[in-house]
Amino acid sequence: MKFVKIPSIVITRLSTYARNLKILEQKGVDVVSSVRLADICGTNPAQIRKDLAYFGQFGVKGVGYYVKELLFEIGKILGLDKEWRLGLVGVGNLGLALLRHTHFMNHGYTFVAAFDEKPERIDIRIGDIEVAPLEAINRLVKEKGVEIGVIAIKPVWAQKAADMLVMAGVCGIVNFAPIQLQCATHVFIENVDFSLKLDILCYRLTSARSRQRR
Amino acid sequence: MKFVKIPSIVITRLSTYARNLKILEQKGVDVVSSVRLADICGTNPAQIRKDLAYFGQFGVKGVGYYVKELLFEIGKILGLDKEWRLGLVGVGNLGLALLRHTHFMNHGYTFVAAFDEKPERIDIRIGDIEVAPLEAINRLVKEKGVEIGVIAIKPVWAQKAADMLVMAGVCGIVNFAPIQLQCATHVFIENVDFSLKLDILCYRLTSARSRQRR
Repeated sequence: MKFVKIPSIVITRLSTYARNLKILEQKGVDVVSSVRLADICGTNPAQIRKDLAYFGQFGVKGVGYYVKELLFEIGKILGLDKEWRLGLVGVGNLGLALLRHTHFMNHGYTFVAAFDEKPERIDIRIGDIEVAPLEAINRLVKEKGVEIGVIAIKPVWAQKAADMLVMAGVCGIVNFAPIQLQCATHVFIENVDFSLKLDILCYRLTSARSRQRR
Repeated sequence: MKFVKIPSIVITRLSTYARNLKILEQKGVDVVSSVRLADICGTNPAQIRKDLAYFGQFGVKGVGYYVKELLFEIGKILGLDKEWRLGLVGVGNLGLALLRHTHFMNHGYTFVAAFDEKPERIDIRIGDIEVAPLEAINRLVKEKGVEIGVIAIKPVWAQKAADMLVMAGVCGIVNFAPIQLQCATHVFIENVDFSLKLDILCYRLTSARSRQRR
């Protein structure tokens, strides 16, 4: 089978489809038309069809999509049919917000370890997790089977944290620090960057205003 | 002038260029080669050239880019040459992390108002800001000149908050709640969604593993 790299935007949309299918499932909906599903997901039926076509043939013409079935298939594609174990680096306000964001529990994501560089935060218990120093990353990633690292620490510590996670065997990192992490090519990094989003908004607002003035 | 809609990914990269140019400027660097700038920003010189070409001609052949000049031009393009006033809805852990993220101050972003739905959080002072109830959104957005709303409140309150912000005249929203906001078409919305990023990582890790097994 030829390997086709699927664009991240397609994966993002699949993830949005899954989220909305889950809500439909919880409401007891069995079948959803492609128009209705597209509407809920803020897209159009052709886009859904195109996105799903990367992975096979889904849905029934004139009927729509079977909710449970499509949810199961997308879950399998995304790898959401297993539990993913997360390690958090940085338990400041942002880290705590992420830990307490119980939403993830429904999603198959569980935090199993947390680390911080500040001595006063070490040994604090948050739910089932005891905060450990950065030096414990190597040991705890292996002991707890951490697969994904979440970096929510000050920028100045972020690269060190990433290096330690990768050294311990982590291949996926969600990075909240506003810096460009440098990691080996086998490591997948997703950046969550508030100020980049703000910059996009400013650009959109600025160019909308300058169009109005013309 | 014909209006060309610039893709968000281009704006995101421009924002990354600006960020790195600022660091170079602070280090006292006057001129940077396109290869060096591309390297710092994790891209290639052709990409930078292509992104900038949307807006004009920049850089000098055989020399590179004048740091101050390019930074100024990108700032103007993105609308970062003015101060943007932000209003925060939701002062839980995530909201506090955003408020305290002093990084934005350097960037021309200032929080000027904060709102919450929990009675015990009303009237708390965070720096110069007094937390107000959601009902005060309309009045304070106008009084304080809020241009961008930042929604960091529970999903169940997010749509109501968005409606109130838009009603008060806000046209740009950064949304941290994991729901699809429904707003009028003149409103720009940027979603910051941690679990979507996790889903992308899971997919990348899952497909890398299945390639290895083949």
